[in-house]
Amino acid sequence: MKLNVPEIIRRKRDGRRLEDAELRALIAEYTADRIPDYQMAALLMAIFYRGLDAGELAAWTDAMTRSGAVMRHDRVPGAKVDKHSTGGVGDKISLCLAPAVAACGVPVPMISGRGLGHTGGTLDKLESIPGFRVDLEPAAASRQLERLGLFLIGQTEDVAPADRRLYALRDVTGTVESIPLISSSIMSKKLAEGIDALVLDVKVGEGAFMPTADKARELARTIIGIGAASGVAVRALLTDMDAPIGRMVGNALEAHEAIDVLRGEGPADTIALTVELGAEMLVLGRAATDLDAGRASMRRVLADGTALALFARVVEAQGGDPRVCDDPGRLPIAEKRDPSVALRRGYVTGIRPRVVALAALEVGAGRRCKEDDIDPAAGVELLVARGDFVEKGAPLAALHHGGSGTGEAMRLLGSAFEIGDAPPERHGLVIDRL
Amino acid sequence: MKLNVPEIIRRKRDGRRLEDAELRALIAEYTADRIPDYQMAALLMAIFYRGLDAGELAAWTDAMTRSGAVMRHDRVPGAKVDKHSTGGVGDKISLCLAPAVAACGVPVPMISGRGLGHTGGTLDKLESIPGFRVDLEPAAASRQLERLGLFLIGQTEDVAPADRRLYALRDVTGTVESIPLISSSIMSKKLAEGIDALVLDVKVGEGAFMPTADKARELARTIIGIGAASGVAVRALLTDMDAPIGRMVGNALEAHEAIDVLRGEGPADTIALTVELGAEMLVLGRAATDLDAGRASMRRVLADGTALALFARVVEAQGGDPRVCDDPGRLPIAEKRDPSVALRRGYVTGIRPRVVALAALEVGAGRRCKEDDIDPAAGVELLVARGDFVEKGAPLAALHHGGSGTGEAMRLLGSAFEIGDAPPERHGLVIDRL
Repeated sequence: MKLNVPEIIRRKRDGRRLEDAELRALIAEYTADRIPDYQMAALLMAIFYRGLDAGELAAWTDAMTRSGAVMRHDRVPGAKVDKHSTGGVGDKISLCLAPAVAACGVPVPMISGRGLGHTGGTLDKLESIPGFRVDLEPAAASRQLERLGLFLIGQTEDVAPADRRLYALRDVTGTVESIPLISSSIMSKKLAEGIDALVLDVKVGEGAFMPTADKARELARTIIGIGAASGVAVRALLTDMDAPIGRMVGNALEAHEAIDVLRGEGPADTIALTVELGAEMLVLGRAATDLDAGRASMRRVLADGTALALFARVVEAQGGDPRVCDDPGRLPIAEKRDPSVALRRGYVTGIRPRVVALAALEVGAGRRCKEDDIDPAAGVELLVARGDFVEKGAPLAALHHGGSGTGEAMRLLGSAFEIGDAPPERHGLVIDRL
Repeated sequence: MKLNVPEIIRRKRDGRRLEDAELRALIAEYTADRIPDYQMAALLMAIFYRGLDAGELAAWTDAMTRSGAVMRHDRVPGAKVDKHSTGGVGDKISLCLAPAVAACGVPVPMISGRGLGHTGGTLDKLESIPGFRVDLEPAAASRQLERLGLFLIGQTEDVAPADRRLYALRDVTGTVESIPLISSSIMSKKLAEGIDALVLDVKVGEGAFMPTADKARELARTIIGIGAASGVAVRALLTDMDAPIGRMVGNALEAHEAIDVLRGEGPADTIALTVELGAEMLVLGRAATDLDAGRASMRRVLADGTALALFARVVEAQGGDPRVCDDPGRLPIAEKRDPSVALRRGYVTGIRPRVVALAALEVGAGRRCKEDDIDPAAGVELLVARGDFVEKGAPLAALHHGGSGTGEAMRLLGSAFEIGDAPPERHGLVIDRL
C-alpha cells in the first residue's frame, strides 16, 4: 500500500477517520523504518487531540501486536488469563496473584515490564530472587505454561516492536498522555501473550498514572473495546492508589512481601487486592462460577500453601533459588536501615505513594533512565498504615539502603506522611468494576 | 539556555504559554541541529491546534529572522517598503508594482520566491528575461537599492534558514495550514529584507491559499501584529482571486504582460491591482499624503514611461537584456499554441484559477517538486475575460507549449471555463483593507 503520509496526518488532524488498511500500513512502514520519526510524531500529536475511534484503535493495536511475534499455546487447554496493572507504588500483586490463579487451574502467561521513574516493575522484583531468569524463549515459556500453568517473563525484542518504538517516540514528543495511545500500547503487548482474557487493574489516585476515576474509567472502557475487537474478554477494576500497596516499596522487599501473601500472611490490603483480581481471573478462566466462588478459591490456595508451592516450582523452573519461598531471608538485604520518625502525634491521614516511591528511587530501588542499575535490596519499609495513631518520635518508615547520600531520600520520606488530629475516612479498595 | 523539550511540547499541547526565551532557544537549537525533527514536528502540530499568541509569535518570528542574515540599507534614505502576496494564479504584480513604486521615490528591497505546485513565483518570471540574475550578494543588492531604488532578488541560504527548515518539515508533517506558522514564515523572510513597511496582498478565493475572507482577515491581522512587534508598519488588502490575474499564466507570458502594464497598457484588472497596492506603498513610504494621491502618482509613472525606464535599468543592472522592455518579443516564445474553444454559447461566468494553473503546470510552466525544471515559454493565454459573451466554438484560451503530451493540459484548460446564460455578477477587486 502506497501511503501519502502528509495527507493521512492532515486527515487525522482535521478529525476525519483513517482506514484500517492505512493504520496497518502506517505501523508496518514505521516499524520497517520507511516512515520517519518526524511524520509519526506529528501523527501522534494529532491523535493526542483527535483520538482514534473503536475501529481505528482495533486496527492500530492489532498492527502493533503483529509487528512482532505473537505467542500461541495450542497445547495448553482452557482459557489463558493474564492481569495488567497500570502501575502503582508497591505493586507486587503480580507475584502473589499469578501463582495463586495458576494454582486454581487457570493458565497465566504473564509478560511483564521493568520499572522506570517512580513506578516499579514486576521483572525487577522477580530478579531480586537470586538466579531468577525472565528471558525464557517463547517455546520454553509455552512448555512451562503447559507444565506448571504459569510463566513470568520479560518482553523480548520480538514482542510488539512497533510499541517499543512508538513508546520511545511518545516519551520525547509530549504524546504519552493519550488514552488511545496508552491503551494500544498496553494491549499490543498483552495480545502478543496469546491470552483469552485479561483483568485490568486501573490504579486511581496520586500515585497512579490516571489521576481521576473518570480518566481511569475511560482508559478501562477503551481497553475493553480493543479486547472485544480482538476476541479477548477484558474485565477492569478501578482500585485505590492513595497509599502504597502493602508495607514494602523496593524490589527484594516487595518479593518478600509477596511471598508472605503467598503463605497466607502479609498486609490485609495486599491480600484483598490479590483475592479480588484473582476472583475475576478465575471467573474469566471458567474456574469459578462467580466472584464469590473465585474469592473462596483464592483464599484457599493462599491459606493451604498450594499457591506458594507452585511459585516455588516456577522460581526453580526459571533458574531461581526456590528456598526463598521458605526462607525469604535469602533475598538481598540492605546494609542499612534508617528510620523516619513522626514529627508530631496524631493519626496517619495519608501516605503519599509518589513521594515514597521517589524516596525509594533516590536510594537506587528504581531507575531514572533505562540504563540505570538498580539496588535490589534498597527501598522503603512502611512501619505504619493509613489510620494508625502515632506518638511524636515514633518510627513511621525505614529506609533500606546501601549506605551513602540518603539526605534527599530521608527528606522525601519524611514529607510522605500526613499526620492529623482526626482519623482519616476509610474508603474501599475497589472503586469501580467495568 | 537548557531546554526540556518534551516539557515545552506538553505545555504548548495543553494550551499554556511558552516564554519568549524558550521560543528563541527552540528556534536557535533547532537550526543548530540540536533539536531533532521529531520533537519540532510534535511541537508544530501542537501549535497547529493551540496557536501562538501575539507575544509568542513575535519572539518566534524574530528568532526565525535572526537565524540568518538581516539586511540593512543604512545609506538608503527614507522608508523602505515591500509588498508580499500570498500567491495567486497569474500574479505578476511584483514585476509591474516594484518599478512603479520605486519610480515614485520609495525604495523597494524585494526578495521573492520560486513557484511550487499551482502557484507561480516572481523569481521564475524574472528569470524568463534573458540573462536576468536574481542571486545578487546582499551588499551589491543594497548598493543597487541606493542607486536605483529597487532590487529584485531571491532568497539566499543566509535568509531565515530556520524558516527554510521549518517549512520543509511542515510540508511533510501536515502542519502547513496554520495561520501563526504561515504568518511567521512570511514575516521572518520579509523582516530580513531591512524594510520599514510592508503591503500585504492576501488573495481570497478558489485559486488562493486562504479560501475564505475570514481566514484571510485572520492571516492579515496576525501578520500586522508581527509587524507591529517588529516596528514594521503593515497594511493588508484582501483581493479577489476568483479568476486568474490578467490574461497570462506562465513565466515569460507574465513577464510580457507586466511590461505591458509598465508601458501603460495591459489588462484593466492587473493595472488596477498594481495601482491599489502601489498607492498603499507610497502612503507607507511617505511619498503620497493619501491613497488618492498615491493612485495618481502610480498612474502617472505607468503612463509616462518612467516606471518602464526604471525597470529597464534594473533589468540591465541585474544582468538581463533591457531590450525586452521595448520589444517583449525577445522573451522566450513557445513553439506551439493550441486553442481551447467554447463548447456552447453564453457568458463566461467563471475562469477557475486553480484549474488554469494546473493546465499550465502540465506543460512545464511550474514545478511539481523543487527539483523540477520549468519551461519559461510555457503557459496559458486567456483570450476572454469573465463576463465576456462567446459563441460556441470561439477560442477561450491558448495553451503555449513545447509540443508533446498536452492531452491532460487541454482537458484541464477546457474544464476551467464556466459558461452560463446570464452574465456573472461583477465584484470589486479589493474585498477589504486592514
